[in-house]
Formats: sequence, structure tokens, C-alpha cells
Amino acid sequence: MRISDLAARTDVPIATLKFYLREGVLHPGEVLSRTQAAYDDSHVDRVRLIRALMDVGGLSMTSTRAVLTALDHPPAARHDLLGVAQAALGDDRPPADPALAEEAWAWVHERGWHIQPGESLVSRLSDQVAAARAAGIDVTWERLGQYADAVEQVADVDVASVPADDEAAALTYVVVGTVMVDPVLQTLRRLAQQDRSARIWAD
Amino acid sequence: MRISDLAARTDVPIATLKFYLREGVLHPGEVLSRTQAAYDDSHVDRVRLIRALMDVGGLSMTSTRAVLTALDHPPAARHDLLGVAQAALGDDRPPADPALAEEAWAWVHERGWHIQPGESLVSRLSDQVAAARAAGIDVTWERLGQYADAVEQVADVDVASVPADDEAAALTYVVVGTVMVDPVLQTLRRLAQQDRSARIWAD
Repeated sequence: MRISDLAARTDVPIATLKFYLREGVLHPGEVLSRTQAAYDDSHVDRVRLIRALMDVGGLSMTSTRAVLTALDHPPAARHDLLGVAQAALGDDRPPADPALAEEAWAWVHERGWHIQPGESLVSRLSDQVAAARAAGIDVTWERLGQYADAVEQVADVDVASVPADDEAAALTYVVVGTVMVDPVLQTLRRLAQQDRSARIWAD
Repeated sequence: MRISDLAARTDVPIATLKFYLREGVLHPGEVLSRTQAAYDDSHVDRVRLIRALMDVGGLSMTSTRAVLTALDHPPAARHDLLGVAQAALGDDRPPADPALAEEAWAWVHERGWHIQPGESLVSRLSDQVAAARAAGIDVTWERLGQYADAVEQVADVDVASVPADDEAAALTYVVVGTVMVDPVLQTLRRLAQQDRSARIWAD
């Protein structure tokens, strides 16, 4: 199909598709002439994935490119899938408060979670806890433990949903599933808060 | 204190503080002269709250103003707190796929959740489910039920953490707590995925 057909199929303007091509997140079509190229279903899928990551996941073009690069070059070992996916989604800024990051590591170890040494998510957790506390929300390690009890069940559902037999599909599933399900979980949390609030406080 | 002192205390540039004043999210200081005003600790707290909502919560200026307006005009009844807070955070777009929104309502009712009729979060849930499915993630209502089992525990922790005796403090707590704890829960989910992955797939 031509780029105008790709635009129609994906509901994405031609100018935006050309931007994706220039940024390297969308693979080139088959060259037909100096001004024309042919696109296929793989381009449709990729454009939809880009839109999902950016619109729903809220990822920047830089993060989107990193995630897509990880998808296009999957690691050999299954467990590494997650590290590659999360590294693509994450950042490596040092923690704002190293002492609090130490506390976060102690909490992770006490919990018995198997986490790679140096994992930047633990620094990020300590930054987020610090930000919540600065805004007046009393996020203690005990309360975090209660949240973690619940979130482990979420992760069990996540892991059980990953396709068992296809490594490439599994990586896509983990990366895209993590990004796409985050907003679903946020909405469920607000609905569950309404339910609890109605039961406890409504007349 | 002068605006330069407020800037130093909050680590926010004077130009940004003047922008907040113009946008009406920061209340004016006490007028001392035609070019000078005095600010106090209430301004420091408010600036920190604005930064938390925008930087950590990722809220736009429009959403931030809506949340702050809700905080400044709390409703009388306790249960209404949550509705006001969530309306300020939410949007009222109609669902992209009305039939799927109907399915979402049926799922909410079957679950026995007490949700106000017309609650826009249910439409948003159906949009998010549709987006995840379009990206190839098989979010069935059954899987959503498993997530909801876990998220109910999160909401129980949320509700138990709300201050019992002060309505205004409770509203701030619910609004700010919902926004500030979302990223903490996202990070915990990724860490719990790593733990599960390490246990199942690592050598």
C-alpha cells in the first residue's frame, strides 16, 4: 500500500508517518521509485504500537525508540527480557537522597525480592517515596509493604499472561503489557477507592 | 518573605512563581507596595504541592488548577470527597466504543462495586482496555477481575491511611495521595515482575 493508504488504515497523518520514518522508529517501505515506497501490514502494526506507547503509555519519542530497539533486538535468555524492557522504559538518574535509597534497598532485601544489584528502579522508588512524603503523604515502609503484598498479585497475573513458547512475542508482551496495563490499574484503583468509600462513608 | 525568598525556599524560579500567580494556582501575597508583596509558609506549601502534582503526578496546568480548586472548596459529605477529587483528575470524554463501555458496566455490576451511575471512570476503563487489546495485549474481563482482586487491597490501604478527623486534610490526602502513590505502585509492579521473573525463569 502507499503511504496515503497507511495513513488511512492507521488514522495517522502522512506528515506524522514521515516523522516516524525520519526518527527511525518506523522501518522504511519497499522502494518503488525515487518518490514512492510500498508499505504492508508490518507497518500498520508498528504504527499502532508507536501510537499505543506514546498516547496511552505517555512515552517520549526517545523512550519509544529505546523500547522499539529492545523489541527489534531481543536478548537470548528469557529472564533478561524484563531487564531489557525495563531499562528501555526507565532512566538511570542517581537517587536524589542516597540515604533513602539505602533504606529502599534494605526494604527490598527484607522483603526477599530477587532484584539485580544496582537496579535503578530501587533509586526511583526512593525518589517517589521522598516526593510523596514532601507532599504530605505518609508513605512508610510498612505501608509500602502492604502495597507490595497487593502488587505481587498483579505481577503474578502479568507473568502468567506472557506467551509461553515464543521469545520475541514474550518480550513484546512484557514491554507493551507493562505500559498498556498501567493506566488500567490506575483506573481500577480509583474505582475500588470509590467502592470502599461508598461502603465506609456513604449514608 | 519576598518572592526571591520564596524562590530560594522552594527551589522554583521567580518567573515560574509569577506564572503560578497569573494562572491563579498560587494565592497572592500580602501587598506591601505597588511592586512588593509578602509571602508566608502557606505559599511555600502551595508551591511544593503544585510541583508535586505537575512533576510527579504529571498533571497539566489545567488539571492542577482543577485539583487545587477542589481542595480549596471541599464538599460537605465525606464520601463526596472522592468524587470531587476524581472529577478534578479525570475527564468526561464519551467512550470510544459504547458497546465495550456497556461490557465494562456489566463487569463492574457483577463485581458488586458501588459506583455512581454515569461515572466517567468506567468509560475510561473501557477505552484503556480497547487500547491494550489493539496493541495485542489480551486484557479479558477475567484477567481484569484478577487485577481487581489485587487492586482492592491497594484501595483498602489507601482508605485506611486517610486522616479520620479533619475533612479538609482528608480531601488533600485523597487527591494528593492518589496522584503521588500511582508512580510508587508502578515502580513496585516492575520490581515485583523482576522478582517473579527471576524465580520462574532464571537459571
